[in-house]
Amino acid sequence: MSLKDSIFGKPLATSQERAEQIGPAAGIPIFGLDALSSAGYGPEAALTILLPLGLLGAGYIVPISTSIVVLMAIVYFSYLQTIKAYPSGGGSYTVAHENLGESASLLAAAALMIDYILTAAVGISAGVGALVSALPQLEPHTLSICLGILIVIALINLRGLREAGALFMLPTVVFVGSLLVTIGLGLFRALTHGGHPIPVVAPHHLGAAMVPVTAWLLLQSFASGCTAMTGVEAVSNGVTAFREPRAKNARVTLTIIIGILALLLLGIAYVGRFYSIGATDPGQPGYESVISQLIGAVAGKGVFYFVSIASVLLVLSLSANTAFADFPRLCHAVAHNGYLPKSFATRGRRLVYSYGIYALTLVAGGLLIVFKGVTDRLIPLYAIGAFLAFTLSQAGMVAHWRKIKGRHYASMFLNGLGAVTTAITVVVVLVAKFVEGAWITLALIPLLFVLMKSVHRQYARMEKEIALDKPMTFAHLAKPLVIVPVTGWNRITEKALRFAFEISPEIQAVHVHAEEDECDYLLKAWKELVEAPAKRAGYPVPHLEVVTSPYRFILQPLLQYINEQARKHPDRPIAVIIPEKVDKHWYHYALHNKRAALLKAQLYFFGNHRVVVMNIPWYLGEGR
Amino acid sequence: MSLKDSIFGKPLATSQERAEQIGPAAGIPIFGLDALSSAGYGPEAALTILLPLGLLGAGYIVPISTSIVVLMAIVYFSYLQTIKAYPSGGGSYTVAHENLGESASLLAAAALMIDYILTAAVGISAGVGALVSALPQLEPHTLSICLGILIVIALINLRGLREAGALFMLPTVVFVGSLLVTIGLGLFRALTHGGHPIPVVAPHHLGAAMVPVTAWLLLQSFASGCTAMTGVEAVSNGVTAFREPRAKNARVTLTIIIGILALLLLGIAYVGRFYSIGATDPGQPGYESVISQLIGAVAGKGVFYFVSIASVLLVLSLSANTAFADFPRLCHAVAHNGYLPKSFATRGRRLVYSYGIYALTLVAGGLLIVFKGVTDRLIPLYAIGAFLAFTLSQAGMVAHWRKIKGRHYASMFLNGLGAVTTAITVVVVLVAKFVEGAWITLALIPLLFVLMKSVHRQYARMEKEIALDKPMTFAHLAKPLVIVPVTGWNRITEKALRFAFEISPEIQAVHVHAEEDECDYLLKAWKELVEAPAKRAGYPVPHLEVVTSPYRFILQPLLQYINEQARKHPDRPIAVIIPEKVDKHWYHYALHNKRAALLKAQLYFFGNHRVVVMNIPWYLGEGR
Repeated sequence: MSLKDSIFGKPLATSQERAEQIGPAAGIPIFGLDALSSAGYGPEAALTILLPLGLLGAGYIVPISTSIVVLMAIVYFSYLQTIKAYPSGGGSYTVAHENLGESASLLAAAALMIDYILTAAVGISAGVGALVSALPQLEPHTLSICLGILIVIALINLRGLREAGALFMLPTVVFVGSLLVTIGLGLFRALTHGGHPIPVVAPHHLGAAMVPVTAWLLLQSFASGCTAMTGVEAVSNGVTAFREPRAKNARVTLTIIIGILALLLLGIAYVGRFYSIGATDPGQPGYESVISQLIGAVAGKGVFYFVSIASVLLVLSLSANTAFADFPRLCHAVAHNGYLPKSFATRGRRLVYSYGIYALTLVAGGLLIVFKGVTDRLIPLYAIGAFLAFTLSQAGMVAHWRKIKGRHYASMFLNGLGAVTTAITVVVVLVAKFVEGAWITLALIPLLFVLMKSVHRQYARMEKEIALDKPMTFAHLAKPLVIVPVTGWNRITEKALRFAFEISPEIQAVHVHAEEDECDYLLKAWKELVEAPAKRAGYPVPHLEVVTSPYRFILQPLLQYINEQARKHPDRPIAVIIPEKVDKHWYHYALHNKRAALLKAQLYFFGNHRVVVMNIPWYLGEGR
Repeated sequence: MSLKDSIFGKPLATSQERAEQIGPAAGIPIFGLDALSSAGYGPEAALTILLPLGLLGAGYIVPISTSIVVLMAIVYFSYLQTIKAYPSGGGSYTVAHENLGESASLLAAAALMIDYILTAAVGISAGVGALVSALPQLEPHTLSICLGILIVIALINLRGLREAGALFMLPTVVFVGSLLVTIGLGLFRALTHGGHPIPVVAPHHLGAAMVPVTAWLLLQSFASGCTAMTGVEAVSNGVTAFREPRAKNARVTLTIIIGILALLLLGIAYVGRFYSIGATDPGQPGYESVISQLIGAVAGKGVFYFVSIASVLLVLSLSANTAFADFPRLCHAVAHNGYLPKSFATRGRRLVYSYGIYALTLVAGGLLIVFKGVTDRLIPLYAIGAFLAFTLSQAGMVAHWRKIKGRHYASMFLNGLGAVTTAITVVVVLVAKFVEGAWITLALIPLLFVLMKSVHRQYARMEKEIALDKPMTFAHLAKPLVIVPVTGWNRITEKALRFAFEISPEIQAVHVHAEEDECDYLLKAWKELVEAPAKRAGYPVPHLEVVTSPYRFILQPLLQYINEQARKHPDRPIAVIIPEKVDKHWYHYALHNKRAALLKAQLYFFGNHRVVVMNIPWYLGEGR
């Protein structure tokens, strides 16, 4: 087993594809990690905005979380319709593409790409946030830990989907289980203590309000909290990954995911209010995540706490996996339609779209570095992409129901409601988070849009240019004029010259005479060792032209000579034979000049389309 | 005038060479900057070692400087012999090469290379040391200033020698002049005040001795102070740069340089003792160079001080220019003999050996970064290389006088004395400075030595392999079997196929069938659009072979196929025609797959020496 195989897994044949498909049990961790893990940062994002309200703020989390859950329910019903209508996979991009046309679909694609990238970045940063809450001495290493986790996830995904699913099952169960236990225990304590339970480990102290409660502040808190809903589109996007019956498996999976998530969001809000838990300053020493405070207050910081935090870290970090499952899939769809470079549509050795994984890893890593791995700084960029994609997808569904036959008023109403509410949310988030970073997303979406458009235009132009449905013509075939640049008489030159004789009778050798050069010797050798035997053997005699170079440049005079010959023979192909030393030892690299490669590059750049470059390799050692 | 021309200067023709040669007036700044500027750091290096002796240490500088001047006198007479014997340029490398054989010459070359690199690094760091003494607020930016100066010097040298000489004349005159004025004024004040002059600006206070005076400490101080002698070999190394009469011009130049340097070293020592000037902690805030203290004490910190310090900065920094004049020249000589990659022997557009300049800039920059631009940390690496080169050069001269006819006992004695004293100095410096950094030099010298040996071995092997003095053979010339990899039927394929028909009648097309591929369509198109018209036109019908690829790899099956064909046709050349899209817009790079380049690389790596690769460029746009 090679090193490559043990890191990336053995290559999978195209025929092994079906075996990679999954059921609801595996589907929940794979497509639900993003949605479920949102419970780990959504409430905290809302509470961080309420920080200046002190103790007062902890109370407002209940109505805010409730509004988010209501919004989520609307989106849920809307997506059930999508899965029904698109059992072969109906991501926002597909739905918009089929129902709203090119521009809307590219807009959706751009929005989703940004959403997935931020899913990866925020998932990891929030997971590491949990880790440094439990082990504060790790706080200075936040960024390095984030990047390490990103690389591990990328490697897992390069190995392929199925193993990933099995790997993520356990942490998800422990995560959901421990949060549900904490919520249950917390509510029980609160009820038995008349709404004022005594925390086992006291959460951070919340002071008096520093600012008055305003609608603006609550709106901002709601906008930040909406990040708790990101990821719910993953299931409808990935229906094809399920085994048959696909639509049903997908619907069951989505229902379970949404149900658990609603429970978690409301539970965290109520228990948090009872225990007076607020956020702490993000990115500062002494930071402790809301989940960490919550578990500590309800259950203390014993074994249960550390197991829970470990699962939070794992699940939050690995929620990035949703992005790694969907981003490459989306890029493939977009590339397949010709809007991204074709390499995004090519499946690698393990049947995954490797280029998408590379791209996601790079960009998410860049974001983590720029924002130093602090979740709170990433949040403002986040929700826009997700909700814009929601809106376009639901709007597309409305168009879909209008197009197909039959009366689908109920479906149309549900999707319409989804479209309108998510569109309003986009505006709310944009307004509330503009200065903090939403503008970055707003600027990136049209940029990606234009980029995809121009990739498509370029491909279309290229395709049109090379398209040919006529039969091949055999008219005007002519033996090429072969030009052989010569530096001296040696076995490399002989090999090149022999090949020249093998392909064409007309050969023109050329030598560039610069300083410290034994030109006379070469001319003499050429007469005796090349011209004479050629005459004797009855072959056409190849002439050696000497070009002088006062400035010691080698390539420029050569290039000039070749272009001149091309002008002189306007109806013949020109074949330039460049002998190239090939050395299998990389550490000999510096010993050989790079003229062969440079000449080729320059010929291409300044060249004529009738000039063809041939590299005659001389393998060092072949003559021994 | 292009941007390239305005940065690097217009290219110079080989015939313009003579105009680049110089007389003593220009020779002193060019070849003397290193030696003269040593006065700027040599005494300070010795005094820094004496730092723990406090006030007592300032007194010991006089005997130490005197011993250094005596040593220098011996080396001077020795080098006069060298110039006499080698009017065509007798650097340590040449002398050792001609008289002591390969190994000694490579040892000398390695020693000199390291010496030149450190000359560049120390010159610049010491100059910046003077600058931050005058403007302490710049101290935190030491390294950036060092690197900036390095780059400017490199650019000046890439433009060529003559302009460099003119540029350096003024600072040298001001530097030497202001130091001589300071010394003269200092001695006058000391004499008129009975040996106890009152400083205008008090130098740093020197306390009582913290350690006893030991021979070891004085030896270390002497070893550090020996760096004041580095650079005196530059003249004999660069005799060819002088105009005729070369030897005489060179001797005059060397004499003036050594005379001035001796005057400066002794003068600084005496005036320093009278004013009780010692070193300050290098690399620490509050650092002030010895020269700065000296000028301040004698003349105050007015206009004279700032003009002097400016000249010190310029001269010390530009002393690196000696290295930039000599290092590339040395590399050229070594490369010409085949011990360094040939590119070091090629003169660039301005008649300078550009690769040597690049290499020196990179390594000196690296040293400055590693040692944070602090002179004191570089000093222990420095003197070894210089004195080892001295020794080998003088020993070579002894061998030279023995070899040639006539009685040259006086010359032989002078060179022998030089060889012995410098050899002793090498041992002294090595012992005294081993732990502080001399070991790095000691380790680098054999490393470079082995590197040069193996470069030579490799070139020799290569030359032997390709050498040919027999006439060209025309036996067994055979039309190549042309293999054309085909991805679809289009104009690019047609162009490649047409070229195939132009060079050989036997053509084999091959298609790799991976997923998402319209193989059937291609087979049909091939029959109708290629095979049928070929038959009609009376050409041999090219067969299309389909190779399936279960793992979606494209290159591997292709490579296998090509190697198979090579095995099947053991006595024919195999020509692989790879169509390559050429796009002049770099930003379209990601749109095209890199298969053409990859296939070529793999063919070279796994390939057969009968396989020749041809790139048929398709210029995007050529078909429009």
